[in-house]
Amino acid sequence: METYSIVLDILILIVCAKILGELFDKLALPRVIGEVLAGIILGPSILCLITPSSEMHVLALIGVLFFMASAGLEVDLRRLIAHFKEGLIVAFMGVITPFSLGMLIGFLYGLNFIQAYALATCLSITAIGLSIRVFMDLRMLKSRAALTVINAAVIDDIIGLILMSIAFSLAIEEEITLHTATSALFSCAIFIALSFMLGIMIYKNVRFRISIIKFLRLGGRTSVSLKLAISIIFILLFSLLAKVATLHEIVGAFIAGMIFRSLLPEEVEKELLDFTFAFFALLFFAYIGIESDLKSITIISDMVLLIVAFAFIGKILGGYIGARISGLTSRESITVGIAMNGRAAVELSIARTFYILGIFTTEIFSAIILMSVITSLATPIMLKVFIKGALRR
Amino acid sequence: METYSIVLDILILIVCAKILGELFDKLALPRVIGEVLAGIILGPSILCLITPSSEMHVLALIGVLFFMASAGLEVDLRRLIAHFKEGLIVAFMGVITPFSLGMLIGFLYGLNFIQAYALATCLSITAIGLSIRVFMDLRMLKSRAALTVINAAVIDDIIGLILMSIAFSLAIEEEITLHTATSALFSCAIFIALSFMLGIMIYKNVRFRISIIKFLRLGGRTSVSLKLAISIIFILLFSLLAKVATLHEIVGAFIAGMIFRSLLPEEVEKELLDFTFAFFALLFFAYIGIESDLKSITIISDMVLLIVAFAFIGKILGGYIGARISGLTSRESITVGIAMNGRAAVELSIARTFYILGIFTTEIFSAIILMSVITSLATPIMLKVFIKGALRR
Repeated sequence: METYSIVLDILILIVCAKILGELFDKLALPRVIGEVLAGIILGPSILCLITPSSEMHVLALIGVLFFMASAGLEVDLRRLIAHFKEGLIVAFMGVITPFSLGMLIGFLYGLNFIQAYALATCLSITAIGLSIRVFMDLRMLKSRAALTVINAAVIDDIIGLILMSIAFSLAIEEEITLHTATSALFSCAIFIALSFMLGIMIYKNVRFRISIIKFLRLGGRTSVSLKLAISIIFILLFSLLAKVATLHEIVGAFIAGMIFRSLLPEEVEKELLDFTFAFFALLFFAYIGIESDLKSITIISDMVLLIVAFAFIGKILGGYIGARISGLTSRESITVGIAMNGRAAVELSIARTFYILGIFTTEIFSAIILMSVITSLATPIMLKVFIKGALRR
Repeated sequence: METYSIVLDILILIVCAKILGELFDKLALPRVIGEVLAGIILGPSILCLITPSSEMHVLALIGVLFFMASAGLEVDLRRLIAHFKEGLIVAFMGVITPFSLGMLIGFLYGLNFIQAYALATCLSITAIGLSIRVFMDLRMLKSRAALTVINAAVIDDIIGLILMSIAFSLAIEEEITLHTATSALFSCAIFIALSFMLGIMIYKNVRFRISIIKFLRLGGRTSVSLKLAISIIFILLFSLLAKVATLHEIVGAFIAGMIFRSLLPEEVEKELLDFTFAFFALLFFAYIGIESDLKSITIISDMVLLIVAFAFIGKILGGYIGARISGLTSRESITVGIAMNGRAAVELSIARTFYILGIFTTEIFSAIILMSVITSLATPIMLKVFIKGALRR
């Protein structure tokens, strides 16, 4: 009986992912890395207990849509508009440096343009959740370095969104000609521009916001369950709209979350996030571990080393240069660079999508997961050690 | 691209199911029937827009597990223990009459034992949610008839649980011999008995309950998301335990819900229910409509007529006789019989499981869905008309 093994697989996956995730959280390490590690341990890399299946695939798809919507819900458009200039240079330098190094790896190892571009994108997207927690622990959240990182992170998200949109647009073309590339980029630019205009309009125009909330029945006496259903419907709808605009579903889900931030009542947002992280995201990130095969890495070990090294150099150097240009001290700038070095959930989601689309081989996909695990584990440790060292002097 | 069509299918299904469900609710008709109808309209019966797929199948499986757990959460063991005797005769008569008539249909149409037994089970399980709403609307919830129905319904659930457990135990045997049947019934009896003992122990022994809540981290400062994850893990675990005990997963999920009722903090229960009804149950019931094919019914129209007729006669007559024996007036007894005539969500879940297990043909499955739709639509209307007529006299 097939259904038997599916329920068993899901159970084993979420139990192990939850345990490792909680353990990592206790150790002030990123939860999501613990969840991916659970998948790596259970999957083909080590125990071979669970292997990828088309059924898990669908659950992972639903999972990543819910997760990207949750990630979108964290993008604060208000903050983005208010602090746009302040974070811009840091974010820009923090993206351009690892991106260039990523393209260089692609060039060195003879990858095609799309592969190199996708790899470069995966090196460029920061996850700062953990750095914020370290700053908090050290009571430095109001410091100039921390504020710069937070401002830069919001813009970083948007640059990441654009980079990944372009990659997805290009990826669906069979052959890249000037014509196909232009039309793909054009429809993707329109989709993103319209989404942002809608998001900013909703945020700035109170009357417009209230009428949308009324129209969607997201306020008032509507039951929470109905509001939740409406939110889910809109996440799926935006995913499909993104697909129609030659993008990938996960871009649409992210944008849906971003727009919904100012529309959703707090309790609905809470229920959506709670359930996503209690089931869908848990399953999704553990499944990323199942899909990777770290054994395949041994073959291309020098490329993997280069990816990890360039990931570190690119982000830390880029962040440092950007912060220096913005007028921060050398010590603050190093802090900024280190704090931006983590890559975790969003980036893993994108890497997996490239893998599913056939752009990444299992080797490259596994290498990126490894890089993600290493940078995410290194970031909080490096940040603590550096800040404490700097304070002591 | 395959994922494209899956997200589109899910979106269309939940939008239509939600709209029809809300519409039915506004008309004081059962929501779940509206959701199934959405599936019937979109599926092979009418529009042929969406067809069953293995991917949707997995989502439906997860959906029915969450739904059965929600149904289990509604079983009030406290009420069951307190009012056991009062509802017993009504529940027993209300099950035995339609069950016998169901076996008779099986005999008349040459079905094998398991098919007849499964069909009889599907005729026997009452859904009283809607009747309670009618009693509420008419301000009769405290009337003797209404209280009898509510007491009977709890026991009805348990009888239904046992009937379906036996059916699933028998269904997995290739050939039914005295030996296989005995061993299947034995393990199923042990599983149900142990579950009830555990449930009643948790309910009666406060110290035991508190230590379980502490052990599972379901109380205190644990985050809601973690509590939710733990609940989901236990629902899946009980599903698998039921499977090991030669039962079906949905029996285990139902029991998990029943046991969890006294353990789950209110907010966790609320989030679990909200999300289940906003996504999983919605998808599941709409998918039942997709899996049925009402066109297939035309071939066996006389059997379908008999199923529907016996469904009405069996429940109304059985409920009436039981209520009369319990000392209610003739008018009250007819009210009880009518109120117990609806069959909806739980029964549809069981019928679908029989269908998936290969016990029901598409014809029988579709006939039961039709019966379910008709009884569920007729119950609130008949109940209102009868009670108002009775009041006028």
